[in-house]
Amino acid sequence: MQVIHDDPGALRHACRSGDFDRPTAGHAPGRIQANLMIVPQDDAFDFLLFCQRNPKPCPLIEVMSPGAREVLCAPGSDIATDIPGYRVYRDGELVEERAEIASLWRPDFVSFLIGCSFSFESALELAGVPLRHVRQQRNVAMYRTNIACTPAGRFSGEMVVSMRPIRSRDVAKVVEICARFPQAHGTPVHVGNPRALGIADLMAPDYGDAVEILDDEVPVFWGCGVTPQWVSQRSRLPLCITHAPGKMFVTDLKG
Amino acid sequence: MQVIHDDPGALRHACRSGDFDRPTAGHAPGRIQANLMIVPQDDAFDFLLFCQRNPKPCPLIEVMSPGAREVLCAPGSDIATDIPGYRVYRDGELVEERAEIASLWRPDFVSFLIGCSFSFESALELAGVPLRHVRQQRNVAMYRTNIACTPAGRFSGEMVVSMRPIRSRDVAKVVEICARFPQAHGTPVHVGNPRALGIADLMAPDYGDAVEILDDEVPVFWGCGVTPQWVSQRSRLPLCITHAPGKMFVTDLKG
Repeated sequence: MQVIHDDPGALRHACRSGDFDRPTAGHAPGRIQANLMIVPQDDAFDFLLFCQRNPKPCPLIEVMSPGAREVLCAPGSDIATDIPGYRVYRDGELVEERAEIASLWRPDFVSFLIGCSFSFESALELAGVPLRHVRQQRNVAMYRTNIACTPAGRFSGEMVVSMRPIRSRDVAKVVEICARFPQAHGTPVHVGNPRALGIADLMAPDYGDAVEILDDEVPVFWGCGVTPQWVSQRSRLPLCITHAPGKMFVTDLKG
Repeated sequence: MQVIHDDPGALRHACRSGDFDRPTAGHAPGRIQANLMIVPQDDAFDFLLFCQRNPKPCPLIEVMSPGAREVLCAPGSDIATDIPGYRVYRDGELVEERAEIASLWRPDFVSFLIGCSFSFESALELAGVPLRHVRQQRNVAMYRTNIACTPAGRFSGEMVVSMRPIRSRDVAKVVEICARFPQAHGTPVHVGNPRALGIADLMAPDYGDAVEILDDEVPVFWGCGVTPQWVSQRSRLPLCITHAPGKMFVTDLKG
């Protein structure tokens, strides 16, 4: 894949001007990318509490003050325009996908930036642990599970996990490496045995693309940033706004 | 010191019945103890955000739902009675120290349990790193610094740090061990050079007891759980309730 934008600020400006509307994986390499969740202030305490109680699927990179649009870890940014695509949910239903949310902005909006797996995936590849979905340029496979998140106020629901096939001899190394990235979902929540998570068929993921598992590999599962979207749908939240799948907010943070 | 209560539940019940009103250090050994901060729900989002933005002085062990009194990591407990002593602050001023707060309780109270240093201190002693204030049965020395915490809403102010003299050859080991305890303030915020923190005289701490520093030692500084008390005073918070110094909430958690 061709890297269009090396500089995170230039990438954000390209989003703002409408010149970049693609998934962000591989762009601004070495910079931390984040999931976005925006809720009105009335729901912000409950959601912040939900993230605090469920750090594996919802590791917080930054929580913005009510109404704030400039992200502290991305000076000069505008959270309402600098993502390639946004999704708007009302009463738990997806109602719209759009290129900006400046025209919807309200002073009571609180933006949550939640870590994503790109950071540990890069570290795993560098350490000689190949990731099949990266090599095949596919989206990672994701599944709803029977693991109940710890509820907080109106937010409750099951954890969504991502799955990567890992060679048996690499599993311990993978855990050691991921432990260094608590803000990118950290260590796996489950190794092997998908049925114990309520997953009947690994080849039928709920989100993303299925990926082959070879004989010398085990499926390894991580808390996934899709969890807050699923939980807000399950909880019929009156209003929330997220990034569109694969179209992340690119911070200035290195790691 | 004689350990009166080995069992955390028995210790909490003794607090509740008025039979235990002493500092908790050394009691229920091996169980995680926590600082307490209670604020009304109107200030709870800002304070939760403050903790999220300042994890070194304010590592969150548990945030309770509004009005809740039973701590999840201490089944059967009552946060309004199970601490040996409480302090009540109004408009930033200490107005009262009392044995229980059940008679003050309001359904909008949100309780925050914040990690304390006992966990890493035990681990350091076990690893052969002696801590002078522990050996001398004194309170640790604490100082207000010139390090501005990242503000959140109405909460702003400088970080309070604790200081322990560490032998030069042990400093790296101390950092490695403390890295395993992010919920107990984690790694030091500063090593050596107290003047850079705005501390003019290490022998005149703002809280706790002064401790001698030998020639082969350097002063090592950690984020301190007194920070939220200081910040709430500085911010003239209308109402907050904390534990009394040294009288912590004892959880069932091991670590």
